[in-house]
Amino acid sequence: MTSINLNADMGESFGAYTIGNDAAIMPLIQSANLACGFHGGDPMVMQHSLELAKAQGVSVGAHPGYPDLQGFGRRPMTIPNAEVEALVAYQIGALMGLAAKVGWPITHVKPHGALNNFACENQPAAAAIVRAIKAVDASLVLVAPVLSELENEGHKQGLVTAGEIFADRAYTSKGTLVTRGQPGAMIHEPHDALAHILRILETSCLHPLDGSPALPCQPKTICVHGDGEQALATASLLSDTLKQAGYQLETLATLRANQ
Amino acid sequence: MTSINLNADMGESFGAYTIGNDAAIMPLIQSANLACGFHGGDPMVMQHSLELAKAQGVSVGAHPGYPDLQGFGRRPMTIPNAEVEALVAYQIGALMGLAAKVGWPITHVKPHGALNNFACENQPAAAAIVRAIKAVDASLVLVAPVLSELENEGHKQGLVTAGEIFADRAYTSKGTLVTRGQPGAMIHEPHDALAHILRILETSCLHPLDGSPALPCQPKTICVHGDGEQALATASLLSDTLKQAGYQLETLATLRANQ
Amino acid sequence: MTSINLNADMGESFGAYTIGNDAAIMPLIQSANLACGFHGGDPMVMQHSLELAKAQGVSVGAHPGYPDLQGFGRRPMTIPNAEVEALVAYQIGALMGLAAKVGWPITHVKPHGALNNFACENQPAAAAIVRAIKAVDASLVLVAPVLSELENEGHKQGLVTAGEIFADRAYTSKGTLVTRGQPGAMIHEPHDALAHILRILETSCLHPLDGSPALPCQPKTICVHGDGEQALATASLLSDTLKQAGYQLETLATLRANQ
Amino acid sequence: MTSINLNADMGESFGAYTIGNDAAIMPLIQSANLACGFHGGDPMVMQHSLELAKAQGVSVGAHPGYPDLQGFGRRPMTIPNAEVEALVAYQIGALMGLAAKVGWPITHVKPHGALNNFACENQPAAAAIVRAIKAVDASLVLVAPVLSELENEGHKQGLVTAGEIFADRAYTSKGTLVTRGQPGAMIHEPHDALAHILRILETSCLHPLDGSPALPCQPKTICVHGDGEQALATASLLSDTLKQAGYQLETLATLRANQ
Repeated sequence: MTSINLNADMGESFGAYTIGNDAAIMPLIQSANLACGFHGGDPMVMQHSLELAKAQGVSVGAHPGYPDLQGFGRRPMTIPNAEVEALVAYQIGALMGLAAKVGWPITHVKPHGALNNFACENQPAAAAIVRAIKAVDASLVLVAPVLSELENEGHKQGLVTAGEIFADRAYTSKGTLVTRGQPGAMIHEPHDALAHILRILETSCLHPLDGSPALPCQPKTICVHGDGEQALATASLLSDTLKQAGYQLETLATLRANQ
Repeated sequence: MTSINLNADMGESFGAYTIGNDAAIMPLIQSANLACGFHGGDPMVMQHSLELAKAQGVSVGAHPGYPDLQGFGRRPMTIPNAEVEALVAYQIGALMGLAAKVGWPITHVKPHGALNNFACENQPAAAAIVRAIKAVDASLVLVAPVLSELENEGHKQGLVTAGEIFADRAYTSKGTLVTRGQPGAMIHEPHDALAHILRILETSCLHPLDGSPALPCQPKTICVHGDGEQALATASLLSDTLKQAGYQLETLATLRANQ
Repeated sequence: MTSINLNADMGESFGAYTIGNDAAIMPLIQSANLACGFHGGDPMVMQHSLELAKAQGVSVGAHPGYPDLQGFGRRPMTIPNAEVEALVAYQIGALMGLAAKVGWPITHVKPHGALNNFACENQPAAAAIVRAIKAVDASLVLVAPVLSELENEGHKQGLVTAGEIFADRAYTSKGTLVTRGQPGAMIHEPHDALAHILRILETSCLHPLDGSPALPCQPKTICVHGDGEQALATASLLSDTLKQAGYQLETLATLRANQ
Repeated sequence: MTSINLNADMGESFGAYTIGNDAAIMPLIQSANLACGFHGGDPMVMQHSLELAKAQGVSVGAHPGYPDLQGFGRRPMTIPNAEVEALVAYQIGALMGLAAKVGWPITHVKPHGALNNFACENQPAAAAIVRAIKAVDASLVLVAPVLSELENEGHKQGLVTAGEIFADRAYTSKGTLVTRGQPGAMIHEPHDALAHILRILETSCLHPLDGSPALPCQPKTICVHGDGEQALATASLLSDTLKQAGYQLETLATLRANQ
């Protein structure tokens, strides 16, 4: 049986502000990436998210972002790599502090938003992030988009690295995501998203939207979302179909143990 | 030989803002309490402070505060104890993340400012802080003012607890600090501070400013400051005189090991 | 015809975070109190709120709060009155900057959350807030709970002051709000809220929950909320019934002009 | 007599953090650009800066920056122009609120750091900033580097615009500042800075560091700094020498009145 993992970003609420639909998406996934207080999340939100994940046996990871709550970590910022390295270590540690309190150790790290985007295309930033993870806990799994500089650095520096594909996004000829706003960039219909994912899994290749040649890759985890009815329907359809198709849906803890 | 420790709060700079005189005070102390990004400090400042401490063999601890950079964590805020517990765990973890990166593990926790003041007089808040420390790492030493609710909770919950006295502050008949602004609250002259500390150490008692009966206590660490020439002179005089008087000045790591 | 005003707090979203139901409540009210970036709101949210209010002819005011986004300005903080005065002036000015840009001048000020609560019972804080308003623009209307220190200071310092009553809250024998969580504190049912408001308006008195003597007051504005179906239903029922009962529902701009 | 103005950025302290040397530089300049709480400054700092400026008859302006306290507004951030426009209006308004309180109206606006740099080379961003200023108060003077897109937009949209030159920075062949770190970028010696400024003023041209042709410009204001002994010495030498050379050193209020 082939193993695969569904992951979702969550724990991004802040104080009185609620964002996302964590309770609805949690039962459909095997691993949750939790915001760590910089682009979203606060100590109480992080603790509640850890408790929710623990109750459902979902493995948790840090989802570190830029220090930009107002921009939700989605605005490109120019930050030196040495500082990127420090702020990733800070955020992983902060989540580990709360994970120790809750009794549900973290298993992985997946950078967020503009930080993730930058690291996917910039090798020195990717290297800084991977160094930070290794320094804090070299047994953590790196979740990184397949074919990205970040995935490459994870492999190079010897981290267990889970290549990630996106259920709702089309790919360019370089294996990057087609920019939001361009025609065909988003895959809205659950059955389209399912077909998109199955094609990638069955061929072990990305299939660029522009029809250019397929790009071989090794996906280990699929990113789904919980915001919006269609996103939830997609996650649910993916979960059901993959199980029926004989895939083993498992946590990143199990994935790591089986490496 | 009697063991004693000198500690100082540091790493409270933020971004382009510098505060304190960390480089000057570091050689005079054995343990440093580092701000964790809430009332002061940021990932780069924390990393540099850890590196500075490591270079000088100074043991480091978390100095968690309220989430109030503008007020430097000195403004009383009404925060539920469950949230206090979470924000202390977050900050300890964050520093541990950077400490792992620097290779200089933390040894202790000392709450900051208004959070510390509140916990010294409020048992449930003190209990929440101690639970947070135990949950993250039960081997961490708690630095808490002698005779405070916080010191009491540390003992009660079984943490190694280092009772703290202040070189530059007079005490009330209850063993709390005389409020700043009241006559005699501050001890400015280095030789007065030295006499104040020696009297406490030699009698194992606080001697209230108002002449009321001495209060037995077990100080293990002395808080000094690095801001201002007199504070530095006090730290230097204390360090020299205590050594000559036969005290063993040691880190909190050593203090913990000898428990 | 007796004039009355319905007001609601809004514009409290922040960045990617949405809170409240501004679009639904706006058509039911005559004046909106807009967060100014400290406890909620940001420049884009403020601008959009001003545009929405302008489109519907709703008068707008500043809703300044403590600098505590994480606590949504609801956590008591100890801030000197001189600083309260400055932070209120800052927030009013910031909204005026955006109001000039939108072409919809502000008409009033209503402090938010813990700042408002404190000023209602603390004369020096109330005086500081009123001084700040007068200094920035002495023609601004102060919205303050009836019988509060804040309302009193508004009158004393000569601001046009609109006494405020709450549709969904019961009163103590002192004229303050019964603390949330106590039995009877909240008035959930729209018809109960309507009866509560009509009784106050018709008798020009608050009627304490504990049955103690009625407290004469001069309400000019009624605070309603937009969060939750019942709150919206209450606002809608109040608006309809008051119109049918012959009340003139008018903006604070009109109220001020008729002073 | 030719009129000229010396300006300096100040009021950039925050809470317990002090930065710059405002008291020393204030007597040497005619106009002060005050941080508005985003990259630095807070309501109390702004108020104190306004009081200091008023006491010395120095005209004050807003110095709006990106919402990035940790990066001191110096980190490039990707922010849509509509939001730039709103955050500039917000910050100008906030300072006007405090200026009304202090009784010392503002006269100008000078964007800060990365926001300023971006607007100097990006016409749409420059246009957004100028629109914001005009919308809040069309009588405000725009301080913008000579030959920049920002200066150009100021003229185009009809603002009184004061072209700015820098005492301590060399210029490229395009009229932009030579990037810090490149040889010759910084002019440290006071007499070198004086010669650099006099040459620009006397020739009404920038003289690029690389020897390429002089660039005609119309400077109205000279930016000086207060941090560091040399910067202060430069400001002092410039002030003295320009007076002796017959220049009229005047505020931006006077400059505006004489337009």
